[in-house]
Amino acid sequence: MQNPELDAKIVARGKDFFSAISGEKPSLFNKGAWMGKVMDWSMQNEQFKIQMFRFVDAFPSLTNPRLLTDHIREYFGEEKDMPPVLSTGARLAGMLGPLGGAVLNKVISANIHEMARQFIVGENTVEAVRKMEKLRKDGFAAVVDVLGEATLSEEEAEVYVGTCLEVLDALNVEQKGWNDLAGQGGVPGLDWGHAPKVNISVKPTALYCLANPQDFEGSVEAILSRVRRICAKVVEIGGFLCIDMETHRFKDITLEVFRRLKMEYRDYPHLGVVLQAYLKETDKDVADLLAWAKARDSQISIRLVKGAYWDYETIRAKQMGWQIPVWSIKAETDAAYERQARMILENHEVCHFGCASHNIRTISAVLEMADELHVPKKRYEFQVLYGMAEPVRKGILKVAGRIRLYCPYGDMVPGMGYLVRRLLENTANESFLRLSFAEEPRIERLLEDPEKSAERERGERAAKPENPVAAPGGMPCFENEPMADFTRADYRAAFPAAIARLRATPDKTYPLFIDGQEVATTDLIPTVNPAKPSEVLGRICQAGIPEVAKAIEAAKAAFPAWRDTEPGERAQYLLKAARIARRRVFELSAWQVLEIGKQWDQAYADVGEAIDFLEYYAREMIRLGAPQRLGKVPGESNRYFYEPKGPAAVIAPWNFPLAISAGMVSAAIVTGNPVIYKPSNLTGIIGHHLVEIFGEAGLPAGVFNYVPGRGSVIGDFLVDHPDIALIAFTGSMDVGLRIVERAAKVHPGQRHVKKIISEMGGKNAIIIDDDADLDEAVPHVLYSAFGFQGQKCSACSRVIVLDAVYDRFTERLVKAAKAYRIGPSEDPANTMGAVADAVARKSILAYCALGKQEGKLLYESPVPQGEGYWVPLTIIGGITPQHRLAQEEIFGPVLAIMRAKDFDQAIEWANSTSFALTGGIFSRSPDHLARARRDFRVGNLYINRNITGAQVERQPFGGSRMSGVGTKAGGPDYLLHFMDPRVVTENTMRKGFAPMEADDDMLK
Amino acid sequence: MQNPELDAKIVARGKDFFSAISGEKPSLFNKGAWMGKVMDWSMQNEQFKIQMFRFVDAFPSLTNPRLLTDHIREYFGEEKDMPPVLSTGARLAGMLGPLGGAVLNKVISANIHEMARQFIVGENTVEAVRKMEKLRKDGFAAVVDVLGEATLSEEEAEVYVGTCLEVLDALNVEQKGWNDLAGQGGVPGLDWGHAPKVNISVKPTALYCLANPQDFEGSVEAILSRVRRICAKVVEIGGFLCIDMETHRFKDITLEVFRRLKMEYRDYPHLGVVLQAYLKETDKDVADLLAWAKARDSQISIRLVKGAYWDYETIRAKQMGWQIPVWSIKAETDAAYERQARMILENHEVCHFGCASHNIRTISAVLEMADELHVPKKRYEFQVLYGMAEPVRKGILKVAGRIRLYCPYGDMVPGMGYLVRRLLENTANESFLRLSFAEEPRIERLLEDPEKSAERERGERAAKPENPVAAPGGMPCFENEPMADFTRADYRAAFPAAIARLRATPDKTYPLFIDGQEVATTDLIPTVNPAKPSEVLGRICQAGIPEVAKAIEAAKAAFPAWRDTEPGERAQYLLKAARIARRRVFELSAWQVLEIGKQWDQAYADVGEAIDFLEYYAREMIRLGAPQRLGKVPGESNRYFYEPKGPAAVIAPWNFPLAISAGMVSAAIVTGNPVIYKPSNLTGIIGHHLVEIFGEAGLPAGVFNYVPGRGSVIGDFLVDHPDIALIAFTGSMDVGLRIVERAAKVHPGQRHVKKIISEMGGKNAIIIDDDADLDEAVPHVLYSAFGFQGQKCSACSRVIVLDAVYDRFTERLVKAAKAYRIGPSEDPANTMGAVADAVARKSILAYCALGKQEGKLLYESPVPQGEGYWVPLTIIGGITPQHRLAQEEIFGPVLAIMRAKDFDQAIEWANSTSFALTGGIFSRSPDHLARARRDFRVGNLYINRNITGAQVERQPFGGSRMSGVGTKAGGPDYLLHFMDPRVVTENTMRKGFAPMEADDDMLK
Repeated sequence: MQNPELDAKIVARGKDFFSAISGEKPSLFNKGAWMGKVMDWSMQNEQFKIQMFRFVDAFPSLTNPRLLTDHIREYFGEEKDMPPVLSTGARLAGMLGPLGGAVLNKVISANIHEMARQFIVGENTVEAVRKMEKLRKDGFAAVVDVLGEATLSEEEAEVYVGTCLEVLDALNVEQKGWNDLAGQGGVPGLDWGHAPKVNISVKPTALYCLANPQDFEGSVEAILSRVRRICAKVVEIGGFLCIDMETHRFKDITLEVFRRLKMEYRDYPHLGVVLQAYLKETDKDVADLLAWAKARDSQISIRLVKGAYWDYETIRAKQMGWQIPVWSIKAETDAAYERQARMILENHEVCHFGCASHNIRTISAVLEMADELHVPKKRYEFQVLYGMAEPVRKGILKVAGRIRLYCPYGDMVPGMGYLVRRLLENTANESFLRLSFAEEPRIERLLEDPEKSAERERGERAAKPENPVAAPGGMPCFENEPMADFTRADYRAAFPAAIARLRATPDKTYPLFIDGQEVATTDLIPTVNPAKPSEVLGRICQAGIPEVAKAIEAAKAAFPAWRDTEPGERAQYLLKAARIARRRVFELSAWQVLEIGKQWDQAYADVGEAIDFLEYYAREMIRLGAPQRLGKVPGESNRYFYEPKGPAAVIAPWNFPLAISAGMVSAAIVTGNPVIYKPSNLTGIIGHHLVEIFGEAGLPAGVFNYVPGRGSVIGDFLVDHPDIALIAFTGSMDVGLRIVERAAKVHPGQRHVKKIISEMGGKNAIIIDDDADLDEAVPHVLYSAFGFQGQKCSACSRVIVLDAVYDRFTERLVKAAKAYRIGPSEDPANTMGAVADAVARKSILAYCALGKQEGKLLYESPVPQGEGYWVPLTIIGGITPQHRLAQEEIFGPVLAIMRAKDFDQAIEWANSTSFALTGGIFSRSPDHLARARRDFRVGNLYINRNITGAQVERQPFGGSRMSGVGTKAGGPDYLLHFMDPRVVTENTMRKGFAPMEADDDMLK
Repeated sequence: MQNPELDAKIVARGKDFFSAISGEKPSLFNKGAWMGKVMDWSMQNEQFKIQMFRFVDAFPSLTNPRLLTDHIREYFGEEKDMPPVLSTGARLAGMLGPLGGAVLNKVISANIHEMARQFIVGENTVEAVRKMEKLRKDGFAAVVDVLGEATLSEEEAEVYVGTCLEVLDALNVEQKGWNDLAGQGGVPGLDWGHAPKVNISVKPTALYCLANPQDFEGSVEAILSRVRRICAKVVEIGGFLCIDMETHRFKDITLEVFRRLKMEYRDYPHLGVVLQAYLKETDKDVADLLAWAKARDSQISIRLVKGAYWDYETIRAKQMGWQIPVWSIKAETDAAYERQARMILENHEVCHFGCASHNIRTISAVLEMADELHVPKKRYEFQVLYGMAEPVRKGILKVAGRIRLYCPYGDMVPGMGYLVRRLLENTANESFLRLSFAEEPRIERLLEDPEKSAERERGERAAKPENPVAAPGGMPCFENEPMADFTRADYRAAFPAAIARLRATPDKTYPLFIDGQEVATTDLIPTVNPAKPSEVLGRICQAGIPEVAKAIEAAKAAFPAWRDTEPGERAQYLLKAARIARRRVFELSAWQVLEIGKQWDQAYADVGEAIDFLEYYAREMIRLGAPQRLGKVPGESNRYFYEPKGPAAVIAPWNFPLAISAGMVSAAIVTGNPVIYKPSNLTGIIGHHLVEIFGEAGLPAGVFNYVPGRGSVIGDFLVDHPDIALIAFTGSMDVGLRIVERAAKVHPGQRHVKKIISEMGGKNAIIIDDDADLDEAVPHVLYSAFGFQGQKCSACSRVIVLDAVYDRFTERLVKAAKAYRIGPSEDPANTMGAVADAVARKSILAYCALGKQEGKLLYESPVPQGEGYWVPLTIIGGITPQHRLAQEEIFGPVLAIMRAKDFDQAIEWANSTSFALTGGIFSRSPDHLARARRDFRVGNLYINRNITGAQVERQPFGGSRMSGVGTKAGGPDYLLHFMDPRVVTENTMRKGFAPMEADDDMLK
């Protein structure tokens, strides 16, 4: 809260500011022009706003008239139904009718281009320089921001560096002819006597395509290696370099890049970085950075902005289960800004301040604080965005003089993202510009101390009645376990520490666990690190037929009591197991890195998913455990409830060694079926973790039995056994179908038709539509295809690309893939690790060879030398449906690319295999997406995102055809497969009288 | 509405009546005595009331101290938790502590006996005569009502007749010594100068165990044959005979019995019948009866009561889907009573009036109306129940003189039912006695013209906000199709008429139906009437492999379009089919009588169930057709929905030839799976009805294909075919398991793991607990075992009887079974018809023979001579679990009786077969019922009722183990088996922005 005296001054200054610009309007809101009309409609109509801005987003990809016409219709309807803002222009051209479409195309295109030009200073250096010179004549300095597509490859990073250097060269040539902007004395040749005329802003993620906090050091160094080259040029021409701030994910990387760069150019004063007031961490970041600079007696510059990714940060944090990093109330950000501005101004001797805001309260506060603190004028300046808030910039120019426009520069196509962000910002309900200029401004409110506003809003929110939604049984609702947040240094440190701890303990022999007892056998199989097979992690006792028989006997004996244990009580064991796994999360994740070669995030996600299954199925059982009344007829009570089937064999794969095991096992257990669990021998230690977890949770003896063993020895015995009532299997199609077939035979003594839950393979495709956003499509395809070496049944193994974008997509994809580094997963610098074992390697290499015959090798990565089950990341082009590469599951990092002539063919090809597991589509065509929703017939379809990583509850997982039997793990119907429904009907009428139930339908 | 002048007189008289008895209380409500306390507690505590009256109901069966102790604890809890009314008596005896149980037993038993004695005039003639003489001394006449257990057999009917005759003889001896009750002149030797001293009331259903409106004529004649003997005796001794009225079901039978009897004793004036004012039909019945008597110039007597089965009538009508036959507002009944009383009084010259009511308003109204109409005193009298409403009877005696007490006579055991009914009546919220004597009476309200009260309550009800619950899609909620109501003459007439119409049409050849076309083949199988195999009903074209292949091809071709038809639209076809079936209900039912030998009600129920399936699955599909959002994370849309699996083979049985076929077919179709339907060749015509119905409903070609054929020819081909995605089968275990096994093998070209829905056999048991109400148990067991000749998978085929009741139960069961008549089902006089075919007959007869070896033949019915697939109704005793008769499904009218030593053994035996389909238990032990709910592990358990006739929605049907795969036809999970779930996940965030959904979890 500002002190009252200062606040009064701020408000007074603000009022002066408002009256000085009274009657003026930013061109954004000028309803005389098309953009102003669009803004106006958007503010009135949320649906139109969404469609309009999505259309603008897609617009650069609409490279032919048909595409454009189709999208206009798909987004806005037929011409007759269109909002006037769209149709009127065309109608005014007097040409509607049969030529309507073409005219509409032309008018809308022209308008969108015009709109973009409003915000972008130039598409080339000549244009940009010309515009900037004009601005300088009006008294405005500039900072250039090079727009670009997302950087997906090293080559694209180089292009970005090249563009920056080219711009700097061009500006350097021009600056010599530029007059200084007037200041109060200072150094000649500098604007206002102290500011370089050339000023450039650089985005760190444009400099390195794999920037990622998990590989913090690698990311910092990679970015630094390129920013250093730009910086050298900046220093050479005496310019100003600002490191831009993007999303929170990259904040600490960016600050670290800035600090290291600054230390390299310790004495060069014109280096700055951006901080965002809306981040809750920024108070600390500002303080730390100022202290850091002071300690080094080094001059820095901070551009303080409010922050432009509020929706993104909030949504992403919600999606990942993280604390939301931004302030949730707009005024909290404004208040933080004033706090942080004061800190900077108080330290003006080490830090130059760029105040970047359109908010008149903020600007007034900065001016007044600077006055109060006697900050020399050369130690702070103001910045606003080019093309926006013209009255504000005019006002600032008048009162402060030192104003710089942030000028995006570059192609329209990548510029659209910037445009959409600006349009959204300014149509948001809380936008200062909207509130000040698009509506009748409530000036008192707009100038109020934001701390006061924030307090009021917090009060209002607190007063709103909470609507506490609880899961059945009064439990808190299910929420997914948070993903690992590697922006946190403690998370980054936890992995190497946990791995080191595991390595420090001697390798162990893991016994079987039957009927609550450890059972050792002499037949041992070693389990190894696939990146270094000579590293034996442990030895797994193998069960033979006698042990399996014993386990089945134990499960059978445990069945009656476990069946009759209350569902809610069974659920408690799962909840306890979840707490145990959560406590051990880093250790359990570290085992996955070592035993099966998962990358850190993948390993952590697997453990998180295991916890999710435990938490979710516990709640589901509580929900399903309550008998339902059926019918409302009086005198009759019908209660519908479920009971378990009997001993369950759970046969689990190695690729999600904890999650899938925990999922199948916990589903069986919580529904009341004792389990005989056979993990994969490749992940026997991780399998054994379930023994430890359920043991600690106190599960009764016989309810969970762990019997790893050779499939060839015990598989058929387990499947055929007459006492097994239920088999839950996840693995390959061949094994799955064998189980289905064998288990259907009834053996002597068998009391049940066996229930089989069989989740099998996939041959999953992603369709790249001709209007796809390739910035998104390429990295998501790579992640879907090569994450965990492609060893997921959900992995992308085919990309079906529409002819129109095939070349561009493939080029970017291959270049992007080249950045992937192959090596041990324990090193976060490696994007891809070793595959599961020698058998897998051999099979995958055979498919690589086949791919080269059937299609055209587009890329084959190098692999590490020496031991380890290494296979190259492989991309094969020219594949068509009749190729084996288009039909068979490879289960490794081999991606087939298929060129489809049109969308129909793409859908047809997508559905052309025996499988129906996952699929994806990148498209911005509402019609094509609607079509895909229906016709792309897979268990899990993902639109405009990667196709792996299904989350419990949100994306129940599983497919049909030869991918599965229509069960959906982690979904609302899953537990039903583990139980049989029963009905108990009671005639409650005795001697003509029946007690009434509350919901009896007694009388009309 | 009474005219105001008369009403004023009635109210004035009522007030006088009230003040004359002011301060008096019926012993019922005397809180000084145990009964008054119980009544008081019951009126305050609904739960206690239910437990108390249920305990009283069970009490006569608690024939040893352990049983009694257990039940006291089960009904009322431990002694320390008991309501004081129960424990205090024992505590006062000062003997609580270790002996508590025994004392409690004694005290409670004594109290209940005392309570019963209050209402029952005597357990033997000596006691009864002594009490009646005492009553006569006080001025009260009597009518004797012989209590009895429900009459379950001809023998029991004879016992009832015998008791009546015995009572009449005893009274006849005594009456000679009785003084006349004083009257105004008249005939000496008669009470009041006109009324016989011996007066008896007879219950028609006690005279014939199979009374049933479906066999109206048979019931009337059977009852008449016995009532005639009682009447002869009454006439001989110059007494009065009244035919009692029981439930609405028997009303028209009773009236017909009365009319015929009256015509036989045309000139004897002392014959009467009871009518119940609460029946909506009674106005008409009174008018008709008076007109009938007038037309014949014959003297009758009507005892008009309010009616004692209001709850029963309402509940039963709700359960059967019928119009409720009684007035729903108590005052409507009171108003009807005044209307009907007036009619009778107006016709006093042909009809003597017995006004039987405790209601002072009613009594006053009758007195005033009689005055107004100048009815001679000898033409009407008053009646009240013995042991109740003592102040009322005293008041009547004073003002009218002619009062008769209705005196139940007989054993305590059957008397308990009577007692419970009285207790319930008098604790009901609307009981006149309760309102007048147990509470502070609101005399104005109690004496108000009931028409006025009724109007007010109708107004209040109408003002209450309706809570219209609708099914998804805004449809009216599902309701079961009403059962055939054979109390209606039009229903009784419809069957013979429909059967005659079918017979009048020449027999037809029924072609296959494939891809929307009729396809004739030359291979024909005749379908015949099993009661008369020489009667060929039609000829069914047989499909061979080429036809089945064609049908599969058609289904496959129809699949894509049908799959993509909106679920709501698919549902409309089912709703249309339901309307068509409803229109043809009698014709469709008649076919079942002829083609498979169902009794009328069974046939009608089968058609009704078919309609239910259509209506229910239509609604279910609309419910399931709406995609669900999963998760609430912003920026992410997860939609969960279902899609069909593909061409479905439906293989149907002959025993529920329309219902099960329609159920499986409509489930497959509405979920989007085209069907290849193979009906049983025994019911090919009924199978063909689906062609007609779905054809008229307009189902697209290929969606429904009808291919009857020989299983040996086409069965495996259909099951093995790679294009079949789903098989829905109902039939025997052997065939079901064969299908499960064969279908599990994947054949070349197959794209799906086949889904099998297999409903198989049962070996269903009913447990008769040692406290079972045998009056209920015996007829329900018979119906469950022998309805439709036992040819239901749900049929009872074992009765497990606890040792303590074995002899009594078995004796009553066998005697009751002897009443069953075997013969063609088209004649409603026959309780059991022919079995399906010669194969069935042979198999059943073999089991009969085996049963005689393994156990002891208890009963084997005679069978008709000549053609027809007749087998005897057979009951075998002495069966234990190791016998084949205890293990194998017979599918015919053969019932095995097993003697269990205790309840544990009964449960163990019940679960001791391979099957787990239906089961039942008759018990009044809360603990045993709780145990059975959990441990009697069958798909459908029925408590205290028959175990067949599961209703759609209310009793989803199906079992586990070797009875089925855990699907429940007609239940909420059923359609899920026909579909695969899918999830479409959309990343709705573009350029950092996502539209919000209403239920997004955006900010805390």
